[in-house]
Amino acid sequence: MKLPSHGSNPHYLYNSLGIEMPEHYVDFSANINPLGPPPALLEEWKHSFHYIHDYPDPQASVLTKKIAAMEGVPEQSVLVGNGGAEIISLVARWLAGKRVMIVQPAFSEYETACLANGCRVTWHMLEEGVWELELPALDGIDAIFLCTPNNPTGIEYSPQAVVHLIQECSERGVYVIIDEAFYDFLEEAATYTAHLPDYSNLIILRSLTKMYSIPGLRLGYLMADQEIVSRISAYRPHWSVNALALMAGEICMDAEDHVKRTREMIESERLKLKDFYDSSGFIMSKSSINFYLLREPDTADASGLLRFLLENGIVPRHTFNFPGLSGRWLRFAVKTGRDNSSLMEVLNRWRKEE
Amino acid sequence: MKLPSHGSNPHYLYNSLGIEMPEHYVDFSANINPLGPPPALLEEWKHSFHYIHDYPDPQASVLTKKIAAMEGVPEQSVLVGNGGAEIISLVARWLAGKRVMIVQPAFSEYETACLANGCRVTWHMLEEGVWELELPALDGIDAIFLCTPNNPTGIEYSPQAVVHLIQECSERGVYVIIDEAFYDFLEEAATYTAHLPDYSNLIILRSLTKMYSIPGLRLGYLMADQEIVSRISAYRPHWSVNALALMAGEICMDAEDHVKRTREMIESERLKLKDFYDSSGFIMSKSSINFYLLREPDTADASGLLRFLLENGIVPRHTFNFPGLSGRWLRFAVKTGRDNSSLMEVLNRWRKEE
Repeated sequence: MKLPSHGSNPHYLYNSLGIEMPEHYVDFSANINPLGPPPALLEEWKHSFHYIHDYPDPQASVLTKKIAAMEGVPEQSVLVGNGGAEIISLVARWLAGKRVMIVQPAFSEYETACLANGCRVTWHMLEEGVWELELPALDGIDAIFLCTPNNPTGIEYSPQAVVHLIQECSERGVYVIIDEAFYDFLEEAATYTAHLPDYSNLIILRSLTKMYSIPGLRLGYLMADQEIVSRISAYRPHWSVNALALMAGEICMDAEDHVKRTREMIESERLKLKDFYDSSGFIMSKSSINFYLLREPDTADASGLLRFLLENGIVPRHTFNFPGLSGRWLRFAVKTGRDNSSLMEVLNRWRKEE
Repeated sequence: MKLPSHGSNPHYLYNSLGIEMPEHYVDFSANINPLGPPPALLEEWKHSFHYIHDYPDPQASVLTKKIAAMEGVPEQSVLVGNGGAEIISLVARWLAGKRVMIVQPAFSEYETACLANGCRVTWHMLEEGVWELELPALDGIDAIFLCTPNNPTGIEYSPQAVVHLIQECSERGVYVIIDEAFYDFLEEAATYTAHLPDYSNLIILRSLTKMYSIPGLRLGYLMADQEIVSRISAYRPHWSVNALALMAGEICMDAEDHVKRTREMIESERLKLKDFYDSSGFIMSKSSINFYLLREPDTADASGLLRFLLENGIVPRHTFNFPGLSGRWLRFAVKTGRDNSSLMEVLNRWRKEE
């Protein structure tokens, strides 16, 4: 049994577990905005066919300018890419052969991409259930990956601890790659961009596919010292960002109302879920964003629950390939009230049938 | 003056030459099917918004199966990528540090990607104006890139010469990467896929963006020995092919009528253009496909003509960054009858004003 390495595309999970896929299911395995893409994007999409038959701007000039202006960084500090995954892959290519530490648990692509590029990878494991950021021993490493707010726990690390890490790394000539793919789901969007001018060892990754619900289009970017951006961009394939993603990115950057509405809705739904889990004896991670980890207090393995949920049309993300979780937890996206109610209803049935 | 490294996005060319962009212009600098995408794709596009808010299938299973069936190769021999440019970049990553020869003139991305990956690059220059494939000295090289039918000349190399090259390389353990990005524009689509089972040193690159006019979406693939595909795919970012490109690819693979109509139209237009060039004293490359090179018999540099054309709303592709052409030639796409007539009309004016 080889479980899929990521959420979404649930047929792979059903197939690998030999469970028949129900006609109706709700996919909680992908951490995507449940309100969907911004309405303005749907409007533009109606007239979008012409974008396909010419090459995209290989320099992504308009979107790059827009990001630079909004983030207050020079244009030369921004590199737009074909989704966060391509950005991670480019960073790993740049780090080829280097000694890389990953603060775990975290998004599995850091390790996959670094190993593909011959890096020596070590883990800094945070304490399970608490997941508080503590300073790792930095001797002998060249770069460290940190995901905050964290995928898969949903936990935002203490800004003091993160800045301390950046400082310590700076003194030792260690690059810090902070993945902020979910930062915009925070009530107060905390970002480390303000530290870019002071720390040339700091690299910030962003994704536009989660908040703006455009994972099918692929769009992400990186912010760093201009010299680093220039070296990393040499590895990026020409025209790597498609024309529809560029168009969508320009529209999404203006969708402030959509972001606000999303945050409010997610916050309210997450609190409702927390009450439910507290009262029904599940353990939920201290998430501040649009997904969270869940486990039973007493079982060492969530396989039984995973199977029950899948059979009942609820698709969670398994955690067998997250170091430090090893299948004990399941990850769920916070979805709409209706979908979350379906989840709670099925979990109530699980409690009764246990 | 830094000229853009590729065609399309003509504002970069106008800007770099300091020429004001006319309100109306015709872009001959991108080698894209002038009939546009297949009509079936436009139909599907009307209902395509839902593709954007879920992740694409990271394995591109449906499209991969379809390509494998049509090409008569095992599924494991096919790797779908984010346009030909990503495929080239992945091959170059796999060849990192190796000694690579490029049969020139050719698409500039082979060299760009190989140099980015620390390869030592040499050129095998074909005779200008003739561009007949001759066997290079293969000593001391690990891989060779060949583009046939060739971009930028439009010339199809002799199949005997290509097979001879594959054989000689096979005996010496040299990989042969054949870029067939334009093979489907040939009257009889000549491909080297039939040689894949016999030569594990053979790698074939394909693009779907030219014939099907979807460069804005990005879609290409590679066919090779399963072992090679497996090693190259390790470098591909997760979800690198967007969901719209996957959908479009599945539709395009069925668009046989569109391909046939395109070939007939291109053939007829190219012959018309040839007559014009012969009678008005221009030299045209012996193209078999949807673009060609053009030059004046006596000038060592086409800069004057390039400037005249741009000022008159005709956008050719300059050839300053093609080894062996160095700006003496201009490249033009074969477009619709109306567009080609505009080109001939402006060239007639150039002849009179010279």
